[in-house]
Amino acid sequence: MDSNSRTRGEAAGLGICAVVFDVFGTVVDWRRGVAREVAQFFARHGITGLDADAFADGWRARYQPAMEEVRSGRRPFVPLDVLHRENLVLVLRDCGIDPSDHTNAELDELNLAWHRLDPWPDVVSGLNRMKRRFMIAPLSNGNIRLMLDIAKRAELPWDAILGAEVARAYKPAAEVYRRTAEFLRLSPAEVCLVAAHNGDLAAARACGLRTAFVPRPREYGPGQTSDLQPAEDWDIVAADFIDLAERLGA
Amino acid sequence: MDSNSRTRGEAAGLGICAVVFDVFGTVVDWRRGVAREVAQFFARHGITGLDADAFADGWRARYQPAMEEVRSGRRPFVPLDVLHRENLVLVLRDCGIDPSDHTNAELDELNLAWHRLDPWPDVVSGLNRMKRRFMIAPLSNGNIRLMLDIAKRAELPWDAILGAEVARAYKPAAEVYRRTAEFLRLSPAEVCLVAAHNGDLAAARACGLRTAFVPRPREYGPGQTSDLQPAEDWDIVAADFIDLAERLGA
Repeated sequence: MDSNSRTRGEAAGLGICAVVFDVFGTVVDWRRGVAREVAQFFARHGITGLDADAFADGWRARYQPAMEEVRSGRRPFVPLDVLHRENLVLVLRDCGIDPSDHTNAELDELNLAWHRLDPWPDVVSGLNRMKRRFMIAPLSNGNIRLMLDIAKRAELPWDAILGAEVARAYKPAAEVYRRTAEFLRLSPAEVCLVAAHNGDLAAARACGLRTAFVPRPREYGPGQTSDLQPAEDWDIVAADFIDLAERLGA
Repeated sequence: MDSNSRTRGEAAGLGICAVVFDVFGTVVDWRRGVAREVAQFFARHGITGLDADAFADGWRARYQPAMEEVRSGRRPFVPLDVLHRENLVLVLRDCGIDPSDHTNAELDELNLAWHRLDPWPDVVSGLNRMKRRFMIAPLSNGNIRLMLDIAKRAELPWDAILGAEVARAYKPAAEVYRRTAEFLRLSPAEVCLVAAHNGDLAAARACGLRTAFVPRPREYGPGQTSDLQPAEDWDIVAADFIDLAERLGA
C-alpha cells in the first residue's frame, strides 16, 4: 500500500475522462476459461489424448489471421463470434477431429466458451472504483453480445460497450481507437486504453490516446515470454486493476 | 398487487431474451429536465418574460424534422447531440434571443441539459428487476455519450448502449430495430421494445420485435393528448416499469 499511496493520483494531471479496456487477456483469463469448456466438450464426447490448454492456444492462434482478412479489406466486417466459430472448425480439424461428427448446435455451444470467461481476481473491484470517477468501457475486438455476456456473468460494471463491432473495424486499426474517442465525444488524449499488450498500446498511442499497461504474465500460461514488461514509457504502468485505480486517483 | 399477481409471468411464453427501451419520454422526463436547466440559463442571463416549459417544447418540436433530414438521406448520420445543438440556436431565435449574445461554451453547456434528465420514479427499480432476467439496453435516438451520461447520473443499469448511433440510423427507420436485434445476436421476436409512443412500437412490430407499451401521460405536460392509450394490441401493456417487470416475470 505504501507504493500505492505515494503514487495516488499520479494521473490527475493527465486529463483522462474515460478509461477503456482491452478484454481478452487484460480483463479476462481466456485461456483457462476456454480450456475448461473444451475439456468438458472432450469428456462429453469421449475424446481422449488431446490437451485442452493446447486446443485453447490453437483456437486463439487463429484469431489474428482471421481478423487480418477484415483489416486488409479482403473481407467485410463480421463479428468476432463468427470468426471464432469458423476457427473452431479449423482447430478441430487441426486436432484430427471431424467437425461433422458434431451437430451445429454442439459447436455453437462450444463457441460460447468465449462468452463465459472469468475475469482476473483484481478486475471487478478495480473497475468498480474506476467507474466512480471515469467512464469505463471495453475497447475489445469482441463483439457487443460477446462483451455483454461476459460482463453480465462476471458483473463487470461497464458504462457502455464499445470496440470493434461499434467501430466496424478490428484493432489495431487506427479507426477503432479514433472512433471510440468520437463516440465518447472526447479528444483522444482524454481517453486512456488499458491493455496487457504493448502492441495494442502502441497503436492507441499513435492515435493520441493515453496508455496504461497492466501485465498479465500468465495469459498464455506458465511459459509466457511476451508482454512481461512495458515496451515503452506508457503513461501508467500498474501491477493490477486495483493498483491502476489507485494510480488514476479513483 | 393483486392485478400484478394475476398477470405475473404473462410474457413467459413470448420467448423474450432482451428488453430494449425508448428513452426520451419512456425512461426519462425530458420536458421537466430541460425546462429546469433552461430556467437556470434564463436566470443566469437575466432573461425574463419567457416560459422555460414552452422553450423545452419548442426545442423538442425541432427534433423530428432534424432527424428527418438524416432519415431521408439528405444528410449523412450525425449524433443527436449535434442536432440538439443546432436546434438550440434555432429555438433561441424563435424566442427572440440572439444566440451570438452567448458564448459557444455557454450554449454547449445548455445543450448538456439533455444529458442530465431524471428518470420517472418507477424506472430504476423496474430496470434492476428486469436486468436480472433479461439483457437490457436503451434503443434510443440519443447518441452513445448522451445515453451514457444519463445512465451514469441516474444509475440506470444498462447491459449495453444500443440505438441510433450504433445502428447509424434514426428511429423509426427499420434498420435501427433490425440491427439492434443483430447486435444482440437474437431474432427480432426475441427482443421486446418498451415505449410510451405507439408509433415507435408500430415500427418495431413491423420488424418483428415484441412490443410493450408503458403510458407516460405527463411527458408533454398536463395538456397531453397523444399516446394516452395503446393504439394496438401490443404484446404487453403495463402501468409503469415495476408493473412491466412483473408482467415479464422478472
